[in-house]
Amino acid sequence: MNVMIDLCIVPIGEGTSLSPYIAQCTRILRSSGLKTTLHPFGTIVEGEWDAVFAAVKQCHSYLHVAMDVVRINTTIKVGTRTDKAQTGEEKVASVERLLKK
Amino acid sequence: MNVMIDLCIVPIGEGTSLSPYIAQCTRILRSSGLKTTLHPFGTIVEGEWDAVFAAVKQCHSYLHVAMDVVRINTTIKVGTRTDKAQTGEEKVASVERLLKK
Amino acid sequence: MNVMIDLCIVPIGEGTSLSPYIAQCTRILRSSGLKTTLHPFGTIVEGEWDAVFAAVKQCHSYLHVAMDVVRINTTIKVGTRTDKAQTGEEKVASVERLLKK
Amino acid sequence: MNVMIDLCIVPIGEGTSLSPYIAQCTRILRSSGLKTTLHPFGTIVEGEWDAVFAAVKQCHSYLHVAMDVVRINTTIKVGTRTDKAQTGEEKVASVERLLKK
Repeated sequence: MNVMIDLCIVPIGEGTSLSPYIAQCTRILRSSGLKTTLHPFGTIVEGEWDAVFAAVKQCHSYLHVAMDVVRINTTIKVGTRTDKAQTGEEKVASVERLLKK
Repeated sequence: MNVMIDLCIVPIGEGTSLSPYIAQCTRILRSSGLKTTLHPFGTIVEGEWDAVFAAVKQCHSYLHVAMDVVRINTTIKVGTRTDKAQTGEEKVASVERLLKK
Repeated sequence: MNVMIDLCIVPIGEGTSLSPYIAQCTRILRSSGLKTTLHPFGTIVEGEWDAVFAAVKQCHSYLHVAMDVVRINTTIKVGTRTDKAQTGEEKVASVERLLKK
Repeated sequence: MNVMIDLCIVPIGEGTSLSPYIAQCTRILRSSGLKTTLHPFGTIVEGEWDAVFAAVKQCHSYLHVAMDVVRINTTIKVGTRTDKAQTGEEKVASVERLLKK
């Protein structure tokens, strides 16, 4: 089962700059061979369900163990569909086509 | 690693009544031995990381395969912490204690 | 237009205990005359659209100005429907009825 | 108070293709003079708090009244901060700078 997720990992109580944590998670996701696309409120991750969620778990573990984060609040949007395979770019393009009409 | 999640599974294109799908997912989560608590916008699920996310995957699979849902949009809030074990009831109680002051 | 929201306000960089902030927001929401129900990952707020979102803005303002919070990350689920008025309790009850069958 | 939101509007029970609804909401947001950026799971909207949330309300109203949508489930991430003004592009760039190191 393929999945597209929108991943937003928020360490709590670690200061107001979150970019070092997000960069580290992006490295973990990419080294898992997953396609990732950053946006201002999260990261789109596309891949096979088990690989995607194994990488999300690895992000939580890494932040807790290697970066000493005490508390993490993550929000994940998860999309699955059986009618067609659609990449993130195709989802955006289908809206932009309508906007040009 | 223990985790508390807030799970909101939304089948898209299947009519406006979602309760049959949510009931079925609740059965799946409970039969996995996970602690579940329903609220008006989702279900709190508490347990070990792998067991929790295996059950979430099973929900998506069941809806697609057994209930013919074509598209699912799920939102998951995920909380992990290393400083203390805290149940859902304890999280709510800690706020209510402050409200009584 | 009536609305039911699930509000999760997360101050970033203010320590790992969020309950004092959530208690304060709950006081603001209730003093606006809105119906609120706490759960482990947020607060269900029911009311008229403008009143609900005015109160959410007041929460952000209060946390920034009176509690010196520098950065806030809030997640809001918003439900509106035109077919029927349904309270939070009724949403949960409709799932629980199915679970008893 | 300026705000950056990540807006994901999901009409329920209207078929599996959501792009016509998202295109229409994007038109509403842009005609309100707000900066919008589409991504595969939502739209980043930047602007002044009241203008942003007035436009979100207008999206719900338009979908219900003009497009006959019976039920809408929206997820909004809301970011406010008092330490600096930061655009969506700057948020992404600050992570990408770290990834190049």
